[in-house]
Amino acid sequence: MMFIPEFSDVKSAMQLIAPHVHRTPVMTSRQLDVISGVRLFFKCENFQKVGAFKFRGATNAVLNLTEGQRAAGVVTHSSGNHAAALAHAAVMRGVKAYIVMPSSAPEVKKRAVAGYGAEITFCEPTLAAREAAAAEVIERTGATMIHPYDDFFIIAGQGTAAVELLSELPDPDAVLAPVGGGGLLSGSAIATRHLAPAAKIYGAEPLLADDAARSLRTGTIQPALPPRTIADGLLTSLCERTFTIIRENVDDILTVTEEQIIEAMTLMWTRMKIVVEPSSAVPLAAVLANRELFSGKKVAIIVSGGNADLSRLPFGERG
Amino acid sequence: MMFIPEFSDVKSAMQLIAPHVHRTPVMTSRQLDVISGVRLFFKCENFQKVGAFKFRGATNAVLNLTEGQRAAGVVTHSSGNHAAALAHAAVMRGVKAYIVMPSSAPEVKKRAVAGYGAEITFCEPTLAAREAAAAEVIERTGATMIHPYDDFFIIAGQGTAAVELLSELPDPDAVLAPVGGGGLLSGSAIATRHLAPAAKIYGAEPLLADDAARSLRTGTIQPALPPRTIADGLLTSLCERTFTIIRENVDDILTVTEEQIIEAMTLMWTRMKIVVEPSSAVPLAAVLANRELFSGKKVAIIVSGGNADLSRLPFGERG
Repeated sequence: MMFIPEFSDVKSAMQLIAPHVHRTPVMTSRQLDVISGVRLFFKCENFQKVGAFKFRGATNAVLNLTEGQRAAGVVTHSSGNHAAALAHAAVMRGVKAYIVMPSSAPEVKKRAVAGYGAEITFCEPTLAAREAAAAEVIERTGATMIHPYDDFFIIAGQGTAAVELLSELPDPDAVLAPVGGGGLLSGSAIATRHLAPAAKIYGAEPLLADDAARSLRTGTIQPALPPRTIADGLLTSLCERTFTIIRENVDDILTVTEEQIIEAMTLMWTRMKIVVEPSSAVPLAAVLANRELFSGKKVAIIVSGGNADLSRLPFGERG
Repeated sequence: MMFIPEFSDVKSAMQLIAPHVHRTPVMTSRQLDVISGVRLFFKCENFQKVGAFKFRGATNAVLNLTEGQRAAGVVTHSSGNHAAALAHAAVMRGVKAYIVMPSSAPEVKKRAVAGYGAEITFCEPTLAAREAAAAEVIERTGATMIHPYDDFFIIAGQGTAAVELLSELPDPDAVLAPVGGGGLLSGSAIATRHLAPAAKIYGAEPLLADDAARSLRTGTIQPALPPRTIADGLLTSLCERTFTIIRENVDDILTVTEEQIIEAMTLMWTRMKIVVEPSSAVPLAAVLANRELFSGKKVAIIVSGGNADLSRLPFGERG
């Protein structure tokens, strides 16, 4: 039995988390409209708390804990935005957060998670070591595991960004979201299919991590590829839950090259003046690489986050 | 006889330019409030057209041309935001724009000005060569010189950012703006003195370009220092017009080190997720360097622009 959220669950999440999350702005850019030939609308989750949409799902997960679960705390193994989001969402609601991170994680990410008040357990940088360390935490504390995307409440929470977007832009021709494990795309698809049934829904993915596109094409979940893309938020593969939602609701998954990602990211930084992480530029890259599909249309993009590492930016002497 | 704008001139500018400029957002950041101990409000002119407040003054100057002046066009010598702003403001109103730029200006700036449809005249990178080239353009075309800050309509136009700011935040304890030639600070001071008479008004300046602070202290305009600061928008010195306004209305000019500028810029990029140029980080740096002055207060900062050169960022491996 696998629980799949429906629109009513996204709506419940919206009511529950609204007092705790930022209602982020929907930005437009005439320059990018001219460059792309598309009417673009950007739902800016880079301005969300902890700098990413992940705070929505994490908050919904924490607010749906039972009393007993709240007392024991939550745990996850992640070095990315989900770890920071869960740490912040839990600790601000008085719930203990245990985060398992590889000791090789960047200092800045360790400091961020520690700064939110989480208890960090370091482990070797392998999935087996991470799972073992998380299991040990659960054994010791009874904490509840909150998976970054294979979770009913996480998916419902991620869908709330699209709910806000569609309340400002009720009739887009298309909605795009980046796809890694598929939590954001699943939630966005559930919300969009209900609120704007005529809109096309696309996932966007790096060609170097195109497991979701291949999963959709072959009909079975394909494993994640070795991590070579700059879009380090999109390295995970789908789970049955997200794959089921995506297969039912998503029209297609568009893939883009690394060069196209960097070009789109450069446009967002220089024209829109917003800091976005590489994963957030993947949908705009997909629009620019498929202009004939979107020409003249109203296209909404979920900008997933803004936690770019300023010491490792991909901008060279490109003028 | 020197014409000094009053608040009624800023108000006229507001009415005239409102249909042509972006009403930029006033952003807040809980993280920066916690870090600074100050309640901060950022008027985000990095989101203005051409990426800087300069578009306000340039638009006001163009809209105040006589019919004869419109027919002959406008000219300025600048390699910075004023050149792009004047080019865009003029050409979009059907007025010819002549821009004198040093041939050594960055390719990206040349392309931006050309992209707005201006006619560029290149010259040697000295003030004498720039003035001579501009004089030649005027001789040949009859174009009207629009100075980047020593201009009645430019100053009145720059004051409109503060008008918008104070309509959303009517009672700040202090308003800060960066100061180079003093156009933005002058316009902001005229608007603030009228709309929020109880507010303190501060200019903020790099220590390596502290000519405005020394001018205020000595009572006579001090020349600009050699260009060594990262805040390349603040290299010019005051003129009689801006000095007169600043002396009458500005409470103090605060100076900051290069390290403080980079630290403030890093905070704005990583916490607020906005792209700002170094000059725009100078007021926040001044707040952080003078916490006792602003502690617990409502402090508004005019964020001047977002045209940072992504190929020359000051962020190293600082974590």
